[in-house]
Amino acid sequence: MDQDLLRELEKRLDEIWEDHVLRPLETLVSIPTVSARSQGLVEGAQAVADLARAVGFQPRIVEVEGSAPFVLGAMDAGASQTLLLYNHFDVQPEDPVDLWDSPPFSLTQREGKLYGRGVADDKGHIVARLAAVRIAQDVLGKLPLNIRLLMEGEEEVGSIHMAQLLDTYEEDVRADFCLWESGSVGPDGRPELYMGMKGILTLELVARGPQRDLHSSVGVIVPNPLWRLVQFLAALKDEQEKIQIPGFYDAVVPPTEADRSAVQGIPLEIVQTWHQEWGVATFLTGVDGHAAILRLLFEPTININGIHGGYGGPGSKTVLPATATAKLDIRLVPNQDLKDIFRKFVAFRDQLGFRDIEVRAVSGQEGPARTPLDDPFVQLVAQTAGVVYQKPPILYPMVAGSGPMAYVRNRLKVPVVGCGVGYHGSRAHAPNENIRIQDLRLGILHVAYLLATFSS
Amino acid sequence: MDQDLLRELEKRLDEIWEDHVLRPLETLVSIPTVSARSQGLVEGAQAVADLARAVGFQPRIVEVEGSAPFVLGAMDAGASQTLLLYNHFDVQPEDPVDLWDSPPFSLTQREGKLYGRGVADDKGHIVARLAAVRIAQDVLGKLPLNIRLLMEGEEEVGSIHMAQLLDTYEEDVRADFCLWESGSVGPDGRPELYMGMKGILTLELVARGPQRDLHSSVGVIVPNPLWRLVQFLAALKDEQEKIQIPGFYDAVVPPTEADRSAVQGIPLEIVQTWHQEWGVATFLTGVDGHAAILRLLFEPTININGIHGGYGGPGSKTVLPATATAKLDIRLVPNQDLKDIFRKFVAFRDQLGFRDIEVRAVSGQEGPARTPLDDPFVQLVAQTAGVVYQKPPILYPMVAGSGPMAYVRNRLKVPVVGCGVGYHGSRAHAPNENIRIQDLRLGILHVAYLLATFSS
Repeated sequence: MDQDLLRELEKRLDEIWEDHVLRPLETLVSIPTVSARSQGLVEGAQAVADLARAVGFQPRIVEVEGSAPFVLGAMDAGASQTLLLYNHFDVQPEDPVDLWDSPPFSLTQREGKLYGRGVADDKGHIVARLAAVRIAQDVLGKLPLNIRLLMEGEEEVGSIHMAQLLDTYEEDVRADFCLWESGSVGPDGRPELYMGMKGILTLELVARGPQRDLHSSVGVIVPNPLWRLVQFLAALKDEQEKIQIPGFYDAVVPPTEADRSAVQGIPLEIVQTWHQEWGVATFLTGVDGHAAILRLLFEPTININGIHGGYGGPGSKTVLPATATAKLDIRLVPNQDLKDIFRKFVAFRDQLGFRDIEVRAVSGQEGPARTPLDDPFVQLVAQTAGVVYQKPPILYPMVAGSGPMAYVRNRLKVPVVGCGVGYHGSRAHAPNENIRIQDLRLGILHVAYLLATFSS
Repeated sequence: MDQDLLRELEKRLDEIWEDHVLRPLETLVSIPTVSARSQGLVEGAQAVADLARAVGFQPRIVEVEGSAPFVLGAMDAGASQTLLLYNHFDVQPEDPVDLWDSPPFSLTQREGKLYGRGVADDKGHIVARLAAVRIAQDVLGKLPLNIRLLMEGEEEVGSIHMAQLLDTYEEDVRADFCLWESGSVGPDGRPELYMGMKGILTLELVARGPQRDLHSSVGVIVPNPLWRLVQFLAALKDEQEKIQIPGFYDAVVPPTEADRSAVQGIPLEIVQTWHQEWGVATFLTGVDGHAAILRLLFEPTININGIHGGYGGPGSKTVLPATATAKLDIRLVPNQDLKDIFRKFVAFRDQLGFRDIEVRAVSGQEGPARTPLDDPFVQLVAQTAGVVYQKPPILYPMVAGSGPMAYVRNRLKVPVVGCGVGYHGSRAHAPNENIRIQDLRLGILHVAYLLATFSS
């Protein structure tokens, strides 16, 4: 029964491949929807809405004040349950263009792969999910689920209007489950599913000293904003990498036994890959193996994105600068709260006596979110992946990165699972972004099979 | 007698003013001797040599391997004692040019001032001293002192070949006393003399993390070079501003009673000026008044000139950078030793476990140097200043800045005193560098009178 259904879906996929997979992907990739430059987003939303309409959705393009267009869509099958598909049609800038082997905004096929900005993140997934709905509908006649679409054009700039969107349109995206934007296949061909994302709080610190740059000889009596930054930042962590902000860990939910067990199931090769690809022999505090994975997924931390102040050219310049800035991102885990952590950060600054350092949150804050491994939806996505990929999926209870998952997970109170058509070599955000055709096929079949399984 | 001699010198100065003060200064300023760009130094050395020859010196233009030309000069009066005049004919770059009210390399007179790059630092002093020798000679018939010249073209880039120069030409600059390159008149019209300079050790620190910039989400396990820099730098000082490097203060000679008394004699207005001009309400550890002056002159410290690494543009970028750099200058006081402090710095780095941070000395290191206040030469320069300026001089046992004084003071073992024609508004190194004509006159008369006093 399983295999028969799968074969039917596969056959139908072959039939629609050119017109409803490759052509639509070609169309989407050709539109440079670079949200960092506010470019192509109206055209991109229109193209996504057109594709959704062709599959049978009733799409709407909506905006909230100051936002890029969102595409919402509904396909009512009269079913009792509703699946939400979250994706985004904006992409990262294509720079540096000269490192691309084919034009970034022109879908190019070579050696079994499809190249172009956004094929992995996230246009390939938009096309894959619409194609999955199409073939499931074609094969089953009628979908066993209502489906809703939530597709945004600002994911790559921090989903800065998602909260406002939900204030107005929450009813339109209400659902019982959600498939998250994307996912990948690991080096061993096993599909990787993830059920949570860290949150991110990005901060800018500005330290001010004298009213203009001074000759450095006065540094023995004049406060130097670089020293101030250094002293404050150093106080944030101890030698064991523990954040020293009082209450920072209060809301942290430690990994469960099931989480630890899932982490143990992640092939250790990934850690070797990290060592090699990053050129890092020893991780912080010497952690390695599954303990390193566990820490990567479940520990919050503070990272310094940049420090800039004073002279940075060749040789030396004896200057005491007037200002210095640092940019930080704080990675949060469930159930840390963005506002609470921001408050505690500022309170710690005050307590240490660094009120002269201005702290401001930079836009694009995202809360942490996760769905427990024992949620039935997680189990269904995993089980169907096993059938389609013919290999057991690798379950990531969390990933280290951040995204707007908390808006859906915590506000709509639905289980959220990420899966998709990328792979370990997809180069999302980088030149020569690509997906493998075989992964695209399997990704479509997985979602189609998942949809069909709701009826069985 | 004093006043008669002074009047004679003054009269002679009036006579030579146009041809042997203004014209030579015009010539020197017109040559853009910008050592940072290796510009105009050959021409500048030639012009200085020509001026010296016109006064009666036998000048030589010499070089050591890789150096700009030096001008050495001797005027043998058959006297038993020899005075060395140290000056430099190179200048700081003129940038930003658009902030100048007249062309930087064209001597311009307005409102009793002379404008142009180098008039205060240090071409005005070259002209003033040669003019002083000229009028003293004219008035006395024969100088009571032999005079030697040591004029370099690399002071503004750290006198990087001075040690090599002395290895070869020490005999040619041997003397019994030395007048240092420059000096100023304070807001109250009192001449400021200084008898010492701090040393400077400039360092560049490079921290290396992963082999390429990584996504910041891995910051919970991957060492971040910015964190490494922050942690190492923070360990260098405690909250009381004490440097934590073992042995850092071992060789420090504390100020004597005479030093403290001289500092007490410095008018406190200077400290108010610092507060206002720098826009700094509170100095480090709350020090103020004469205690702030004492600390500025006699305490060594470490200053951060710059830190650069990671993202510094608008908004945020979630990056963990591959490298980060910091530039430091360490200000040394007598008798700290450059090599000893460098060794201790590196040893402290190793002891703290930061061998991953590369430390290298940047060229232009200068040792600390000072001449005691009770040296007879100091007293003579001060006494003659009192006569010429008709106000008691302000004695700075040390200044906070650095220069090549140690080469002369410590190698030639001669007393060194700085005095000169600048003033508190001279804007050395900045646009609209200028001196006041009245200060130029008094500065010439002071040196001429000092020369004459050796015979009385």
